[in-house]
Amino acid sequence: MIDHIEDICFKAYKASKALSHATKDSKNDALEKIAINIQKDKVLILKANITDMNLAKKNNVSESLLDRLFLDEDRIDSIINGIYNIINLEDPIGTEIKRWKPSNEIDMSQIRVPIGVIGIIYESRPNVTADASALALKSGNSIILRGGSESFYSSSAIVKSIKNGLKESKISEDCVHMINTIDRDAVGLLLNMSKYVNLIIPRGGKALIERVQKDSKIPVLSHLDGLCHTYIDVDANKAMALDIVLNAKMRRTGVCGATETLLCHKDIVDTILPNIINKLLEQGCEIRADKSIQALNKAIKNATEEDWQTEYLDKILSLKSVESVSDAIKHIEKFGSNHTDAIITDNKNTAEIFLKEVNSAIVVHNASTQYADGGEFGMGAEMGIATGKLHARGPVGLEQLTTYKYQLRGNGQVRP
Amino acid sequence: MIDHIEDICFKAYKASKALSHATKDSKNDALEKIAINIQKDKVLILKANITDMNLAKKNNVSESLLDRLFLDEDRIDSIINGIYNIINLEDPIGTEIKRWKPSNEIDMSQIRVPIGVIGIIYESRPNVTADASALALKSGNSIILRGGSESFYSSSAIVKSIKNGLKESKISEDCVHMINTIDRDAVGLLLNMSKYVNLIIPRGGKALIERVQKDSKIPVLSHLDGLCHTYIDVDANKAMALDIVLNAKMRRTGVCGATETLLCHKDIVDTILPNIINKLLEQGCEIRADKSIQALNKAIKNATEEDWQTEYLDKILSLKSVESVSDAIKHIEKFGSNHTDAIITDNKNTAEIFLKEVNSAIVVHNASTQYADGGEFGMGAEMGIATGKLHARGPVGLEQLTTYKYQLRGNGQVRP
Repeated sequence: MIDHIEDICFKAYKASKALSHATKDSKNDALEKIAINIQKDKVLILKANITDMNLAKKNNVSESLLDRLFLDEDRIDSIINGIYNIINLEDPIGTEIKRWKPSNEIDMSQIRVPIGVIGIIYESRPNVTADASALALKSGNSIILRGGSESFYSSSAIVKSIKNGLKESKISEDCVHMINTIDRDAVGLLLNMSKYVNLIIPRGGKALIERVQKDSKIPVLSHLDGLCHTYIDVDANKAMALDIVLNAKMRRTGVCGATETLLCHKDIVDTILPNIINKLLEQGCEIRADKSIQALNKAIKNATEEDWQTEYLDKILSLKSVESVSDAIKHIEKFGSNHTDAIITDNKNTAEIFLKEVNSAIVVHNASTQYADGGEFGMGAEMGIATGKLHARGPVGLEQLTTYKYQLRGNGQVRP
Repeated sequence: MIDHIEDICFKAYKASKALSHATKDSKNDALEKIAINIQKDKVLILKANITDMNLAKKNNVSESLLDRLFLDEDRIDSIINGIYNIINLEDPIGTEIKRWKPSNEIDMSQIRVPIGVIGIIYESRPNVTADASALALKSGNSIILRGGSESFYSSSAIVKSIKNGLKESKISEDCVHMINTIDRDAVGLLLNMSKYVNLIIPRGGKALIERVQKDSKIPVLSHLDGLCHTYIDVDANKAMALDIVLNAKMRRTGVCGATETLLCHKDIVDTILPNIINKLLEQGCEIRADKSIQALNKAIKNATEEDWQTEYLDKILSLKSVESVSDAIKHIEKFGSNHTDAIITDNKNTAEIFLKEVNSAIVVHNASTQYADGGEFGMGAEMGIATGKLHARGPVGLEQLTTYKYQLRGNGQVRP
């Protein structure tokens, strides 16, 4: 197996050289050919998906996994649309980030270039196979795909269509590779290919991401937790607070930008909070709160220390009253995951304190934490969300899949 | 010892929170207080340096190490000047990198913020103790210092002055810490402090950098090699080629931006090259060349495969004739270290091919590779040079010691 992993990483690395200098038009042409081939191979992809679905059902996987795995004509159409959307995005490569002339009179410019080879390790979602490949190609990077084992046949079929598309284009089919085994050891081998692979993006369960962060010899962009907070300030607008909290918690409970802990200024616990609690309970949300809030409703459960540390990804909300915005910020600093945290207030000064002092990748004033999404940022699509401090934070879109180099144009300068 | 390392990392981490929101004025005031204290403590620092120098001589360390270690009044003055230069640099923190409003009408901005805590592991150069601390503080980061063991007393004295300066300022003295042991295990412990330390910058010998790259659980910015190339194209200007090659190789042979391999277009081996070779030999440079070039001068030695892979950091140059610019680019791709590579040519098209296709952090047209330096880039000072693909490439100055966060300002938006 190591031969296979080393072989595809090496091929992807070799192919990345030409890809890094491919023109915008040749990359877009290749993406279009990929979309056409996926369209053409629809029946084959659906058949492969039936194989995956049958195996998954036999293995009694969860309903939510089955839903992520499932493909039908509509879902394949949306995969194809996704590729056309990426075609329409601006090509970041070659962009001038900065240009200046220091006192040595050398014309200096900082130019965006691709990273090289990206490895993505993801959940059993066949659509990611196409999305991630398209994002990588558009940003001039080769990609090594390692999807969840349950989606093996679906992803293999999609990769075949991608390679058929590339064969009809000027871009080498070696720019996209999928690991051809579901053996778990393959991930460990991939994480050691620092000679050829420049970046690893893991997505999915916490255990996987922890393992990748621990074992990778290659830089990693990831988020381990999305323990997002919404803080309702004493100066919050009552109606807005209700709308935002319901959306932040309940719109989709399984996404990393969903609010998990609600912080509420103590002076509005009796005014703004009761209605929010009633509406959350009506929508089937379990509430776990500190003592001072439990009196509001018998249905409220008791929150323990563990609740402040838990990303439920479910219809459960932990709820705490705080003394002030500083108290809220301290709680977020202690328990947050540097993902996305929001404040609801009509007081601009309080908002600015929160936006400045909370060190998360995304800080939000008067909007839902569920906006933590590359699409909503206008990036078109995202490879994932990062909460580390280096290279990229927040949504990882096309621009975050690039690095830069300096071009110096002189006229004979020698250094004194 | 682990208690000491964990303790200082934790303190640096705690102190970094307030530092990250410190104003430009309070940071500059602290830097000035540091400069004043170093000035005041000159005699103490010089005494400590004598202790280091005596120990080093007793241990028979190399002349070049002794030179790096040595301090006198002038050198301390230049340390102080360095701090004033950093005071005069623009504060990158809080800068708006980008501001836009996607279709959801949320006002989005991308803002520079500090990284947090930076660990620097460096050679026995006492001046780096002050430079690195000043760069870290100005960019809002706490710093953990680990200098070479030979400079222990000098660095300790400088750190004491720094802390005395901080005590007189609004910035916590816990923002700067030095590891108080020369035990080598301390480095390994530091590399595991990912809970508190966000970035490691190793400088110095190749063995150290290899070890740090291999063992660190924290992201690393570094360059392992500075195997820089200069390519003289068929369309090069003869006088310019001479000036640039002499400077790129001989100005300072021990810096990472020094040219190690000279590539020469085959058609000018008999015209432009002979004079360059003579001048290099005159200046005491050993030349190791391929067969086709050896005929030019009896003093030229034979180059082996190993020479193309060697960063001499000495008065030695490997020299090869190539068929074309593409051939030169291929050689650089195969043997280069992604540091700095230059082309000398009057043909703009050829130059642009080189600047585009060579994937090094710094690519240069018609200037010396020795411009690979933060000061020459107008960054004021640098913490080191990076040749990796993630976060920062080339000189690591103030801006490279920052990351960003997104601030979203809405007016009640909930996600559909």
